[in-house]
Amino acid sequence: MAKVLSGAGLRGQVAGKTALSTVGKSGSGLTYRGYDVKDLAENCQFEEVAYLILKGNLPTQAELDAYKAKLKNLRGLPQALKDVLERIPADAHPMDVLRTGCSMLGNLEGELNFDMQQDVTDRMLACFPSIICYWYRFSHDGVRVDVETDDDSIGAHFLHLLHGEKPSELFEQVMHVSLILYAEHEFNASTFTARVCASTLSDMHSCITGAIGSLRGPLHGGANEAAMEMIEGFTSAEHAEQEMMGKLARKEKIMGFGHAIYSESDPRNAIIKGWSEKLAAAVGDTVLYPVSVRCEEVMWREKKLFCNADFFHASAYHFMGIPTKLFTPIFVMSRLTGWAAHVMEQRADNRIIRPSAEYTGEELRKVPAIADR
Amino acid sequence: MAKVLSGAGLRGQVAGKTALSTVGKSGSGLTYRGYDVKDLAENCQFEEVAYLILKGNLPTQAELDAYKAKLKNLRGLPQALKDVLERIPADAHPMDVLRTGCSMLGNLEGELNFDMQQDVTDRMLACFPSIICYWYRFSHDGVRVDVETDDDSIGAHFLHLLHGEKPSELFEQVMHVSLILYAEHEFNASTFTARVCASTLSDMHSCITGAIGSLRGPLHGGANEAAMEMIEGFTSAEHAEQEMMGKLARKEKIMGFGHAIYSESDPRNAIIKGWSEKLAAAVGDTVLYPVSVRCEEVMWREKKLFCNADFFHASAYHFMGIPTKLFTPIFVMSRLTGWAAHVMEQRADNRIIRPSAEYTGEELRKVPAIADR
Repeated sequence: MAKVLSGAGLRGQVAGKTALSTVGKSGSGLTYRGYDVKDLAENCQFEEVAYLILKGNLPTQAELDAYKAKLKNLRGLPQALKDVLERIPADAHPMDVLRTGCSMLGNLEGELNFDMQQDVTDRMLACFPSIICYWYRFSHDGVRVDVETDDDSIGAHFLHLLHGEKPSELFEQVMHVSLILYAEHEFNASTFTARVCASTLSDMHSCITGAIGSLRGPLHGGANEAAMEMIEGFTSAEHAEQEMMGKLARKEKIMGFGHAIYSESDPRNAIIKGWSEKLAAAVGDTVLYPVSVRCEEVMWREKKLFCNADFFHASAYHFMGIPTKLFTPIFVMSRLTGWAAHVMEQRADNRIIRPSAEYTGEELRKVPAIADR
Repeated sequence: MAKVLSGAGLRGQVAGKTALSTVGKSGSGLTYRGYDVKDLAENCQFEEVAYLILKGNLPTQAELDAYKAKLKNLRGLPQALKDVLERIPADAHPMDVLRTGCSMLGNLEGELNFDMQQDVTDRMLACFPSIICYWYRFSHDGVRVDVETDDDSIGAHFLHLLHGEKPSELFEQVMHVSLILYAEHEFNASTFTARVCASTLSDMHSCITGAIGSLRGPLHGGANEAAMEMIEGFTSAEHAEQEMMGKLARKEKIMGFGHAIYSESDPRNAIIKGWSEKLAAAVGDTVLYPVSVRCEEVMWREKKLFCNADFFHASAYHFMGIPTKLFTPIFVMSRLTGWAAHVMEQRADNRIIRPSAEYTGEELRKVPAIADR
């Protein structure tokens, strides 16, 4: 199958094969191993979807129970890792904290051979919420939290550590949905980073550390944080309407709308929007949800731009009391499944990823003596 | 310019433009910004070449003096970073140590905006030898070394920290040459990792952390370590001949020969081979250098495979008393210049790198109830 170059950024160029997901096949769809993400979000817990993505099939009840029990036992942090987290200041970027925590874990519990790839991935899935919350609570509240809770799920574990109490059933359910929606998205930049790293046959911690660094970039992760910063400045739907029209007139960049691959809609939006509405009712919100809906209406009316997965995630996370700067780390807790599955897939049929470049520099020249420069 | 797919790993596909280097243009050449690497290795210090790669032109004497003075002042490590290094065990992979040290530095001295890109790069150039040696000496010798030496060059700083005394002029000269030879090599996997990360507009520490993780892979960095492990098992040229013939007969993989891009020879080999010979004479070696030469002869005679840059680096580093496991970290201390220059180049004309994938997975299917799986 021959493809022609269609511009910079390798857009449209096939960089490899995957059995993990399809993105925008009919302009709007997203499937994980053949299952529509909407179907998964309505019928599964996140741990089922992680199992599906990593192992290829949905678990039976017994397999799911065993998998959740395994993850529950892997929440603790080695003392050396806690010591590192305690030395990271409160004003650090939370993605830098996760990047460093993941890298440090590789020094303490390295992947010595690829037979360990599932186990080191499960370890990261279980302890990333511990890493981010241990640092956050220590640096912001001066508290050394006990990260080994008995919560039933990864999402509940995260909210428990963050707030010091078990979350409601509704909050836990929304975390399942959110983590499912962000779990996998084909050859996006962070996943591709992980695959390039994997193609040198490097270890899993290197691949995931690199992917975290790429997701940190404002063109990739972080759109839900930017959306939150915008909508929390609006005091009513009318105010939002007025401000959005002004932003559009000034041609300001507005985050949380449109998508590089999806052309008609982002299939994840309707799902998280529904849950954001339920949360708004549960916490008695009368501002942020109506503001968000109005923003969606204005962008569609004026620009035919649809909300992507990130936009209603902002209000949903906010209703659950999650600080804005921890939004992108939640993305990591979820996308880790996709990254690791892509690493495993790359390893199973590998050739080192080494593209060519078009040279635009100087012709051959002689080194002048330093006195003649 | 249209390119057709020529197989996996993006081989032969143009992933972007660069003015930094050409690799194998006539089958054997390597140029940095138009200067032949041989010309640079014969006439320059590493700091001149770093300046060239990062800033686009060779420095005048005054510029070089100022640049070296700047780097000399940036060798110290923050206490929090030392604390982290002290918690990494002696049996950790040294590349994991550098990856973690670089990531931690990003928490303490982050790149807050792209105007800082040259300064954060210079900081890393100056302190990576401090990071690796502080950890190595603490974990292996129980010593907390003072990393702020007044050595004239990066290579001398490294050897001084490692051995606790200033290196000879010859050793310092070989370090200049070695660091020049490894400084830049177009869109190899680690550099491409840095560019993918940079394309999300992430920070320099994320880009370099990711690149270190990719260089760690045995298909990329580490060939000089593998070469060392092989040649130190040979007791004479005759023994090497016999063992090499056995390895070839058994079709074992032999590291340090051939190259993905170069087809006739690796231009870096003759240069480092000459210096390895000088070092052998200086330290009174009568085994390792003749063994290395015989390996080269056998591989050419039997397989028409030439030594790449890594092969004679093994003996050269060994003659300077460098532990084998620190070979690849030296590669990082050098290639950091190329990585950072590529990040700057990507930022200057950016589009997010987001290729496509060929889907090979399941067709659309319904999620079965968990009891029915």
